[in-house]
Amino acid sequence: MLSNTVPTIKLLKSATQSAWIDQAIANLDVILLDHSHCERKAAGVALNFLFRYPAHELLVRKLTAIAQEELEHFELVNQWLEKRGIPLAPLTPSSYGAKLKGQVRRNEPEHLLDSLLVAALIEARSHERLGLLADYCPEPDLAQFYRGLMASEARHYGIYWVLADTYFEREVIQSRLEELSIFESEILVSLHSQPRIHS
Amino acid sequence: MLSNTVPTIKLLKSATQSAWIDQAIANLDVILLDHSHCERKAAGVALNFLFRYPAHELLVRKLTAIAQEELEHFELVNQWLEKRGIPLAPLTPSSYGAKLKGQVRRNEPEHLLDSLLVAALIEARSHERLGLLADYCPEPDLAQFYRGLMASEARHYGIYWVLADTYFEREVIQSRLEELSIFESEILVSLHSQPRIHS
Repeated sequence: MLSNTVPTIKLLKSATQSAWIDQAIANLDVILLDHSHCERKAAGVALNFLFRYPAHELLVRKLTAIAQEELEHFELVNQWLEKRGIPLAPLTPSSYGAKLKGQVRRNEPEHLLDSLLVAALIEARSHERLGLLADYCPEPDLAQFYRGLMASEARHYGIYWVLADTYFEREVIQSRLEELSIFESEILVSLHSQPRIHS
Repeated sequence: MLSNTVPTIKLLKSATQSAWIDQAIANLDVILLDHSHCERKAAGVALNFLFRYPAHELLVRKLTAIAQEELEHFELVNQWLEKRGIPLAPLTPSSYGAKLKGQVRRNEPEHLLDSLLVAALIEARSHERLGLLADYCPEPDLAQFYRGLMASEARHYGIYWVLADTYFEREVIQSRLEELSIFESEILVSLHSQPRIHS
């Protein structure tokens, strides 16, 4: 059904393995809590761009909108947590985010390029996984909620891509994206022991 | 008309001196640009609380809403910048924010208390100064814009106060607020050389 070699989303090098779905569906409450943390972190990522590149007009405009949407999603996920009686709590993240961040080069302009591509990859993976949750979640309301979020995640990775395309040459982007997307898929080859959106 | 000794806002120890108004009104474009930075920073402050206290339910709910509003204001101010042909650009801040931050104690729970009170004071001062801009700005549209933002700033300092009141004893808050509000007013005794919202 799901294979490691047929990605459904162009940016990604490999599709999520079916073991992830099994793990996620068996732990919907933990996945929801982790999802809350992911939305908060996604808002933080968008906002950090605004702090680092306050004079990049297009970036500021687009990422202000993304930060707002991520906060709306954060609120929506938190309402689901409340509804299910799951208290907000810290959760150790998988190493996915930190590993990808580790690939971001320090000097400009490489830092900006890598940061945009890493953000695009994370959004693309989130889009894919929320889609899987929408398809396989046995609770219709929750499945519907995931389906509703998918469209924004798709728009988000599109925006990060457009920003990369605004500030960098196409060939430079493509070659770096090739490296980063391979790296991203490799992180996910071994399933994280704990159920997470990016395990 | 304006005096250093009669604060119009209860939280503040002193009212803004009239020299600030003169400086601000003579430099409306710089004030608008600084205002943009202030709104972005205010969103950052609210979001940082969510990262540091992810399990404080009320704090998370209230400060998610504040972060969203600050981002809306950030967008609105940026639209004003665009309308007036002022490019987004970095701006060296006055020392106001850094000095207040320097008063925040490192250990918990003092860190949370001080952070909430400092945020409340900054919002209260912003509320006062946007009100002054609304009163004295010679351009009616812009004055109207400032007036429109004032209500939210007032709500914001109220929320930071309510959060302090939720997590701490009233006497502990009052005694620390007394120290911090005196400190806040002392920072503003000498006008910053550059026109800023918090100069």
